[in-house]
Amino acid sequence: MAFEWPVRVYIEDTDFGGIVYYVNYLKFMERARTEMLRHLGYSQQRLAADHCLFVVHSVESRYLKPAKLDDELIVRTAIEERGAASLLFAQTVVDSLSGQVLCEGLIRVACVNSTTFKPRRWPRELAAGMMQLD
Amino acid sequence: MAFEWPVRVYIEDTDFGGIVYYVNYLKFMERARTEMLRHLGYSQQRLAADHCLFVVHSVESRYLKPAKLDDELIVRTAIEERGAASLLFAQTVVDSLSGQVLCEGLIRVACVNSTTFKPRRWPRELAAGMMQLD
Amino acid sequence: MAFEWPVRVYIEDTDFGGIVYYVNYLKFMERARTEMLRHLGYSQQRLAADHCLFVVHSVESRYLKPAKLDDELIVRTAIEERGAASLLFAQTVVDSLSGQVLCEGLIRVACVNSTTFKPRRWPRELAAGMMQLD
Amino acid sequence: MAFEWPVRVYIEDTDFGGIVYYVNYLKFMERARTEMLRHLGYSQQRLAADHCLFVVHSVESRYLKPAKLDDELIVRTAIEERGAASLLFAQTVVDSLSGQVLCEGLIRVACVNSTTFKPRRWPRELAAGMMQLD
Repeated sequence: MAFEWPVRVYIEDTDFGGIVYYVNYLKFMERARTEMLRHLGYSQQRLAADHCLFVVHSVESRYLKPAKLDDELIVRTAIEERGAASLLFAQTVVDSLSGQVLCEGLIRVACVNSTTFKPRRWPRELAAGMMQLD
Repeated sequence: MAFEWPVRVYIEDTDFGGIVYYVNYLKFMERARTEMLRHLGYSQQRLAADHCLFVVHSVESRYLKPAKLDDELIVRTAIEERGAASLLFAQTVVDSLSGQVLCEGLIRVACVNSTTFKPRRWPRELAAGMMQLD
Repeated sequence: MAFEWPVRVYIEDTDFGGIVYYVNYLKFMERARTEMLRHLGYSQQRLAADHCLFVVHSVESRYLKPAKLDDELIVRTAIEERGAASLLFAQTVVDSLSGQVLCEGLIRVACVNSTTFKPRRWPRELAAGMMQLD
Repeated sequence: MAFEWPVRVYIEDTDFGGIVYYVNYLKFMERARTEMLRHLGYSQQRLAADHCLFVVHSVESRYLKPAKLDDELIVRTAIEERGAASLLFAQTVVDSLSGQVLCEGLIRVACVNSTTFKPRRWPRELAAGMMQLD
């Protein structure tokens, strides 16, 4: 089941076309991943304390319909693949009123040691929490 | 009495110093002003329908202490001066845990006609709503 | 042959990890596409005058190595596929000193009528200019 | 004499009003201060190596006329006051074609030790370089 996180569109998010600047959907998706981890008990600060740094490895995103100023969006986040040192998140940004999908993304995130920058396993408790999220 | 709006610090808000990039406090303050207007029944879309455009005329801001990743902030917003065609907002960004003030701002906003760009009065209902907020 | 555009990394581009916030590479790539079009005689204003709006349809990006504050980067932009109403740009962000590739992207851009938002052909002169760029 | 630095307006800089989002002028001004320091031989990396961190203490900005997509701007930067541990920069953003002033700012920057965060004097060579800039 997907984790849902609401996002409101502010002036800062728009561009001269009067719509959300497409680059900013990646920020919305990251906020949702951050909140999903916080929901599992892992703030970015706790991850840092565990010497764990999340690094985005790749992004695939498709833009279907634009969001506008004031719109309330919902970001749906699911874990598509779970490797020993990487995660593939499948995320969609949906208009909360119409339910229409505005943007889809596949984001691969790697876990690296925050000192050596070498790939490392997820913290054990976090991995256990992610299991329960399915 | 001030209008309060919470803001969470995400990775997008930080800079290489590990703290919130100082420019971004102005975004936080604008979100709070937008929500204060929405609370009074005025979305940006409704303002546009009333041919009313808000334009920032000047900013004075002071940075007292930095916010960090994961911090939950509160933006306090009060109307300091209310002119026929302008508003002076006094805003503070506060750490929700310690209560410490991190950043203070005085933001002067003008109301202009969205077609002619000439100064115009606030929509009557909005002005009435702002009275009730004191 | 690729069109090259230099980009300097400023504080605004970094995040708490001390490196370029990965979302910002998409901004760098867009600057380079914009400059490539300007090089062909098409500013965004001229495109608008031709009722032509560029809309990003999809992005695929891979992050290989991080850029740091002060780094001078080069964005290499080539047109990979040229359809009647869409373009596929292949772009790489390279460190200007080491020549290492930091980020790769495939960005599909559609041309739509700026009033009807329906797909439309490229302006004839722009299409001709793009031929000469190969 | 003021240090001049050109800035081009890209899509990322605009908002739904079709003009530069007012917050972004502060980014343009910071790029210009960074380039002024680089011109004096001080990259941000060299400052860091000297355990010197620049912290923005306060901003006063006024918005006179909006910039639009594609505009080429010039940021003029002068040092208004030079204290032992702080600098007051007077900056204007000017339209390169019309010469009109679009935005003015007074930005106070403090120099702090990057470990202790206590105020400290400017590196001696940087102070000498700033003298020569007058």
